Amino acid sequence: MKNNRRSESCGTAAECAAGKGAAENKTMEYMKISETEEHLLERLHSPDDLKALSPEQCTALCAEIRSLLIETVSKTGGHLASNLGSVELTVAMHRVFDSPEDKFVWDVGHQCYTHKILTGRLERFSTLRQENGISGFPKPNESEHDSFISGHSSTAISVACGIAEGMRLHGDKEHFAVAVVGDGAMTGGLSYEGLNNAGKSRNNLIVILNDNEMSISKNVGALARYLSSMRSSEGYVRTKKAVERRLNRTAVIGPSVAKVIKNSKSVVRDVLLQSATIFEDFGFVYLGPVDGHNLVELEEVLLAAKEYHRPVFIHVHTVKGKGYAPAEAKPSEYHGISKFDIETGNPEVSAADSYSEMFGKELVQLAKHDPRICAVTAAMGGGTGLHHFAREFPNRYYDVGIAEQHAVTFSAALASMGELPVFAVYSSFLQRAYDQLMHDVAIGGMHVVLGIDRAGVVGEDGETHHGLYDVSFLCTVPNTVIYAPACYEEMRLCLRRALYRDKGLACIRYPRGSEKVSFDKTALNTEYTHVSGRKTDTLYISYGRVYDHLYRASRRMAEEGVFCDLLKLTRIFPLAEGVVEIAMSYAHVVFLEEAYYYGGISQLLGDLLLERGFRGTYRRVAPKAYLPQASTDSQMETMGLSEHAIYQDMQQEAKHGKA
Amino acid sequence: MKNNRRSESCGTAAECAAGKGAAENKTMEYMKISETEEHLLERLHSPDDLKALSPEQCTALCAEIRSLLIETVSKTGGHLASNLGSVELTVAMHRVFDSPEDKFVWDVGHQCYTHKILTGRLERFSTLRQENGISGFPKPNESEHDSFISGHSSTAISVACGIAEGMRLHGDKEHFAVAVVGDGAMTGGLSYEGLNNAGKSRNNLIVILNDNEMSISKNVGALARYLSSMRSSEGYVRTKKAVERRLNRTAVIGPSVAKVIKNSKSVVRDVLLQSATIFEDFGFVYLGPVDGHNLVELEEVLLAAKEYHRPVFIHVHTVKGKGYAPAEAKPSEYHGISKFDIETGNPEVSAADSYSEMFGKELVQLAKHDPRICAVTAAMGGGTGLHHFAREFPNRYYDVGIAEQHAVTFSAALASMGELPVFAVYSSFLQRAYDQLMHDVAIGGMHVVLGIDRAGVVGEDGETHHGLYDVSFLCTVPNTVIYAPACYEEMRLCLRRALYRDKGLACIRYPRGSEKVSFDKTALNTEYTHVSGRKTDTLYISYGRVYDHLYRASRRMAEEGVFCDLLKLTRIFPLAEGVVEIAMSYAHVVFLEEAYYYGGISQLLGDLLLERGFRGTYRRVAPKAYLPQASTDSQMETMGLSEHAIYQDMQQEAKHGKA
Repeated sequence: MKNNRRSESCGTAAECAAGKGAAENKTMEYMKISETEEHLLERLHSPDDLKALSPEQCTALCAEIRSLLIETVSKTGGHLASNLGSVELTVAMHRVFDSPEDKFVWDVGHQCYTHKILTGRLERFSTLRQENGISGFPKPNESEHDSFISGHSSTAISVACGIAEGMRLHGDKEHFAVAVVGDGAMTGGLSYEGLNNAGKSRNNLIVILNDNEMSISKNVGALARYLSSMRSSEGYVRTKKAVERRLNRTAVIGPSVAKVIKNSKSVVRDVLLQSATIFEDFGFVYLGPVDGHNLVELEEVLLAAKEYHRPVFIHVHTVKGKGYAPAEAKPSEYHGISKFDIETGNPEVSAADSYSEMFGKELVQLAKHDPRICAVTAAMGGGTGLHHFAREFPNRYYDVGIAEQHAVTFSAALASMGELPVFAVYSSFLQRAYDQLMHDVAIGGMHVVLGIDRAGVVGEDGETHHGLYDVSFLCTVPNTVIYAPACYEEMRLCLRRALYRDKGLACIRYPRGSEKVSFDKTALNTEYTHVSGRKTDTLYISYGRVYDHLYRASRRMAEEGVFCDLLKLTRIFPLAEGVVEIAMSYAHVVFLEEAYYYGGISQLLGDLLLERGFRGTYRRVAPKAYLPQASTDSQMETMGLSEHAIYQDMQQEAKHGKA
Repeated sequence: MKNNRRSESCGTAAECAAGKGAAENKTMEYMKISETEEHLLERLHSPDDLKALSPEQCTALCAEIRSLLIETVSKTGGHLASNLGSVELTVAMHRVFDSPEDKFVWDVGHQCYTHKILTGRLERFSTLRQENGISGFPKPNESEHDSFISGHSSTAISVACGIAEGMRLHGDKEHFAVAVVGDGAMTGGLSYEGLNNAGKSRNNLIVILNDNEMSISKNVGALARYLSSMRSSEGYVRTKKAVERRLNRTAVIGPSVAKVIKNSKSVVRDVLLQSATIFEDFGFVYLGPVDGHNLVELEEVLLAAKEYHRPVFIHVHTVKGKGYAPAEAKPSEYHGISKFDIETGNPEVSAADSYSEMFGKELVQLAKHDPRICAVTAAMGGGTGLHHFAREFPNRYYDVGIAEQHAVTFSAALASMGELPVFAVYSSFLQRAYDQLMHDVAIGGMHVVLGIDRAGVVGEDGETHHGLYDVSFLCTVPNTVIYAPACYEEMRLCLRRALYRDKGLACIRYPRGSEKVSFDKTALNTEYTHVSGRKTDTLYISYGRVYDHLYRASRRMAEEGVFCDLLKLTRIFPLAEGVVEIAMSYAHVVFLEEAYYYGGISQLLGDLLLERGFRGTYRRVAPKAYLPQASTDSQMETMGLSEHAIYQDMQQEAKHGKA
């Protein structure tokens, strides 16, 4: 994709405030708060206060915000690049609109930090993504300025559409629903369903496309090419035309607007000849593209958009990671990042091995000997470890954009042609392809392998991102096999079996992060492992990473002279006959599950045990409620699935004479 | 939408064969097979034989097919209007392409009857949609000419994309993947995800838009308006241009093509000035619009499309119900229709009352007193009974197109503004909005009411359409309430409670068709009803329409002097504490459930009983496997949920001394 317009953009806020030109700023545009002249942020008590600032103060404010973003995220981790790219846009929005009466809807929500800072959460901003701190995503229960939950992609247009419709039903013609959507989110089908419905209304709906040419990785697809071609067309002609039209109706002419008019006449002919944009086809007024780091232009286009009182689509061009050289250079790596060193940009902890990495590398090894293996990702090539595959086998690697539905249906069609498709996807995002799993994969018995990454709790991203539901919803898909390996090697075994022994939908779920193994790895298999050194009355069952917690807790108990047997499940669905038989032979069974309580494997086993006439006690430990953001360790503790919690559970069991 | 181009189209196949002009044919274009001169269909043994037919024979063939379609569907019921609309298109496709090497992918599949007739299923066509007969949808296990499962909307582009990619991977540059997609399916986001990915390839992929201005009801949204504007633009200019371009490369010039060339020069200027279509924006070559009932034009455009060897989008304009006056006049009513009288077009059984109708009417009554109530449908206003609401309250009625994802997210946003949205949707299609229920409704606790229509088995539409999974997947959505009323009045009670007493996601599931009630309706409620006239050891539990089967079976047993107690659940999730307590008090419990075995309520109850230390026997009757097409009664029998099957079950119980 062309990138040549970036160098043309006028200086950023950070550059201006530091008195540097763009050319001088290639290595380090970042500037500490203490170096700015004023401490503007602390003097802002509500978004309204923003409106009194001079243009120069606004520029300084953006620099302050950028510094705060970099400093905070360097300590907390989080979404950096997307937030750095939307500082000016957010400031302009809060200057032109009146939140919370005007309602902002942030798609995905990973660009809402500036919005949070400007809407009463400056003091708490250091608690970002921490337990009991402020969320990294919009949360209506955190502030009236957060109109709607977000976390998953491509929902904002539909949400804004509903909000605008609500305003209409209330007779509110004054306020606006404003959706901010990344170009990546435009690859998701829900965005189009939203556009198709929004464009037919006459509501106060504004969709701002925050186009940085990226989703998380480099953006893909025909739409990306299309947006790119729009960016490289004559700049701003549409905006100028729109502003000019507005001026015929409104009397206020600022100096910069007047300048725009002077230039506009020469381009009218171009406008007439220019083809309609895809967004006009959908019934929107199209304004753009405008420079998303130029506050004056941004405010002008937003003011113009307010005049229409019908759906307006504003195309804003931003630079992901803007103002922080390491993030601008490698925006994918700074999309979601852990703590890092500000000076160097290096993450504090070097990237360890992980399930994702191991999965990606193993797939490469297998694909070397099997040309049928194809790898599919929905804009998560890096996150899922499939970038290894992309490098080795670009010819059969498919990044389909943020389009999980297509990824699954496309994989099913590949399977119908005799390929062996492997779709690696985060558990939480797989939810979006539920019907495709049911309809396109399962009914026809297509052999598709899913690598379900980020299964289980994910820590700081919180409710919207946990991978706690995949087990339950995959069990509702007929003829599905699910594996939950407890270490890398088991994952490799499961992957081979899923590819070469299973039919239909075969799923391997594994958590975020790296393996932790204290248990014996000599007799790994893909079914189950019964650890019954000393036959006792009590059996503890688990799978996946929780098994290691269970194993360690049982070792501690053993040191205290209390023993219990363990059962590690590797294929968790369908349950092997042997698993039920083993459980039947105990007086007390406890099932620990890092998956949702309803519809999980422990529920299934309970039902099976009852139908077989089990007469012992049965207890399940699994999360029933949404788990708010915290560290993964803390969430494990909350669920009763940490080593410590299981140890306590075992002590209780022992006290009641059950172990 | 403008319809003025219809009268311009040249005579249809049926008209030509009957020797009548379009003007004479307003009332009855239908013609019995015996009236045609030849019996062409019987002489065709494979699609290849089609290629030897003369143009006149092709026209006659289309008339024969149309007659067969009308006669068959009048006896079997099925999708009539969409199949009548695609006769010529299908014939043209089979003449130009080589199935099964070239692969046809029929979106939804409700237009595949002609394809079935032409691919070896003529003799079995009378078994359409019957038990053990041929399916009303493409089924790969039925014929090698059916490349892929369909039934749900908007999958075809993604499927064809995967098939074309498979061809590429195999080095097959000769064959084509051809998707046939209705304009309704273009309102679904998955179609766009497919387009976005397909357009970037250089594969042999052809997407044919079968545009009849309808989905099932009149099509909606910005896209429909856009397509309409394209239809009304200067006819065929793009096609002509394309054909002309092809001629510069290929040597074959037929007489009709030569005629096209003569006219083409004058429109070149128009073409250059015309704006790019949305489909070209997606990277496709665009050809069209062409008259979908003109075989010559169709074959020309398909031949032209084959020359590109890159993604081509063909816009075909058809008339839904073409050739059968009643269906042309009311295409929505003849989309899916039961048996009907050919001469009058009247359905054999007049539309009885139904759960859908009662739901729609009740919502109107409630909305009269509550301006917050909004009704949302995904292109199923008629099917879900919401057309009553549309007529009374057009201002707060939303038909969003075949866009279940948007419907749910939009509803959640309406709820965030204080409205009371009710989304009525078929159970099977709700699967597509699973993530939106999770992410947009549940996490934020939005109060959205779902009317889940066609819950349970649906009979002749078979595997793709059963509503058997909603219970399982809705139980995985935190803070959800599910009701399964057993009669209209119970449904009304549940709807009121869902609207005014529940919070969060509240779902009411009800079956296709009308209520059948033999049980006592005097003490209806929304929780549960325990029928324990004579206290026995055995309790049978059920919900929804199966409860009536259960009740009747228990009456028969009572007549024979064998008694068992019954428990009718109305709120099925979460299970009331009382339900568990009642079940605990029996020695034998049997749960009959018209929902998928895994993750259903009977599984949940089994697990709960075990955890409470239940010491009796527990047995579940629920479907585990896909249920092929048959009558609903037959499917009930197969599942063990008919009155007869339950009666037999009770006799077995009694024989073993349990009742």
